Amino acid sequence: MRKTLFLTMMALLPFSSAVADRLSSEPIQPIEPFVSTEPEKVELGKKLFFDPRLSRSGFISCNSCHNLSSGGSDNLPTSIGHNWQQGPINSPTVLNSSLSLAQFWDGRAADLQEQAAGPISNPMEMAFTHSLAVDVLRSIPQYVADFNKIYGSNEITIDQVTNAIAAFEETLVTPNARFDLWLKGNDNALTETELAGYQKFKETGCVACHHGVAIGGTSFQRMGLIEAYQTDNPAEGRIAVTGNDADRFSFKVPTLRNVELTYPYFHDGAYWKLEDAVDVMARLQLGQQLAEQDIKNITAFLKTLTGDQPQFVLPQLPPSTSNTPIPVPFD
Amino acid sequence: MRKTLFLTMMALLPFSSAVADRLSSEPIQPIEPFVSTEPEKVELGKKLFFDPRLSRSGFISCNSCHNLSSGGSDNLPTSIGHNWQQGPINSPTVLNSSLSLAQFWDGRAADLQEQAAGPISNPMEMAFTHSLAVDVLRSIPQYVADFNKIYGSNEITIDQVTNAIAAFEETLVTPNARFDLWLKGNDNALTETELAGYQKFKETGCVACHHGVAIGGTSFQRMGLIEAYQTDNPAEGRIAVTGNDADRFSFKVPTLRNVELTYPYFHDGAYWKLEDAVDVMARLQLGQQLAEQDIKNITAFLKTLTGDQPQFVLPQLPPSTSNTPIPVPFD
Repeated sequence: MRKTLFLTMMALLPFSSAVADRLSSEPIQPIEPFVSTEPEKVELGKKLFFDPRLSRSGFISCNSCHNLSSGGSDNLPTSIGHNWQQGPINSPTVLNSSLSLAQFWDGRAADLQEQAAGPISNPMEMAFTHSLAVDVLRSIPQYVADFNKIYGSNEITIDQVTNAIAAFEETLVTPNARFDLWLKGNDNALTETELAGYQKFKETGCVACHHGVAIGGTSFQRMGLIEAYQTDNPAEGRIAVTGNDADRFSFKVPTLRNVELTYPYFHDGAYWKLEDAVDVMARLQLGQQLAEQDIKNITAFLKTLTGDQPQFVLPQLPPSTSNTPIPVPFD
Repeated sequence: MRKTLFLTMMALLPFSSAVADRLSSEPIQPIEPFVSTEPEKVELGKKLFFDPRLSRSGFISCNSCHNLSSGGSDNLPTSIGHNWQQGPINSPTVLNSSLSLAQFWDGRAADLQEQAAGPISNPMEMAFTHSLAVDVLRSIPQYVADFNKIYGSNEITIDQVTNAIAAFEETLVTPNARFDLWLKGNDNALTETELAGYQKFKETGCVACHHGVAIGGTSFQRMGLIEAYQTDNPAEGRIAVTGNDADRFSFKVPTLRNVELTYPYFHDGAYWKLEDAVDVMARLQLGQQLAEQDIKNITAFLKTLTGDQPQFVLPQLPPSTSNTPIPVPFD
């Protein structure tokens, strides 16, 4: 009996310690599924996220540029806004965005709720006003009932709207990436190429910025640290928030989770191929010219960061009523 | 025993005969759920329906203008196309569209497959070409595998693309509207107001055109039969297809299924309120000025035609590869 127990423990040990080792020693941590304590708020936020009536045109919803069918992004260099205006910067993925230290490339919003208020009233994006957006929702009895149930008032406010959207967005984490399974001790989850890529990713120094649960999103860094980044995009990054000259061209380090799905890359969306993005990053940020095979291996590793995508039934939006303000698609 | 059986039969009779009566005698028939014999093709079609890479910009999908979160329509007078072009005509709902005698307002497409080919290459809508759309799909291994499994070839063709989209669209029927429950014998499914509205709907003559399973979609009719329809919209309807002068201003009679969700109304999308649409139709098509109460009752009846909306998990689109043609959102 004792002997059996001992052997069982011995059999378990290498696995357990490997798990403990990776979880504590690797610079990247796995994502756990998000379990909301407020499922009704999440459902409301999901509807709002998909509702184009939060835009002036009645055509653009949060999901237009953070498309949950395609990695929470629009896969365009910069987004298309009201009246087909060209957005100034690449639309970051909404997936795992709750894990970032701040929102937007320049971190000008402290959290998801603050972020959600931005595009609705941005004249280049949804081009609406908070007041009009709230008027639309107040005119729809099903929304009024939903808000009342959650916030205990018939007076819908923009803070409630963005609070509910943020609650939905918090659920948009992507657990069970193959890399996470490996982190948790499943040696078969990665191929040798992918593991070699991960080793090179660490050795090269990528983990200095791309670490943590989101493998990014924890700091602002200058784009073009060793060598200047060539771009036509006029965005200057964090300086717009801090006014500090040292923050010029400093951007939030993007998450690498689901990076296979969130092309094109960088704040200007100038690079479509992950291999090219790896090459540019190593040169500009770390002063290293990676060998072609290393680029391939790192790219293979990066593709193991694709996790379970959000899985939910397409929401049904409550219909407008005769009191609902009419959208203005063409001015 | 005999007596019990007799009483049981007597108890059932009024119900059964009422059911048989309504199903055979009413001019409207219930919708049955669609069960596809080709679930894999439906799944592929669903992805394609949601894939904005079938457009030049990479931004517009079938779902943009036939939004399955909002009654299969975009709830705009006329649609927004590539480069924010204003479409020429109201986007009809895709829900129950398989039940129409033809597709588009002027019936220029014989069926759903022929329809699906239109917007992809229409320069005012998705502004792509069939050849480029197919190039995009051929560059994505997951799509190649899907098509191969269904069509038995690695050569994706536009006919396969539209065939799969049509197979998905065929599933978009909306059974179990309250009116259908009433048709099937459930006397409690409708209120007295709604029933009175239905009676008035029949008496007024609306059923002459709005009958059958889709309550429309079975014929082309002149818009403004008794009194001319005033509109700025230059669409001339069926004459564009037949060249026959008698078909000028003749349009496909739209389905009234889910009409509560598919505002604004008519081919020009000029009317936002269902009450107004009822009033206009009675005057222009039937020469009748309905009393306000009758309009209210008919509107109440029309709202019982909202059925079960499509319920499915938001599809996940396979990512582009380094071989995928890059979208052109801004020319």
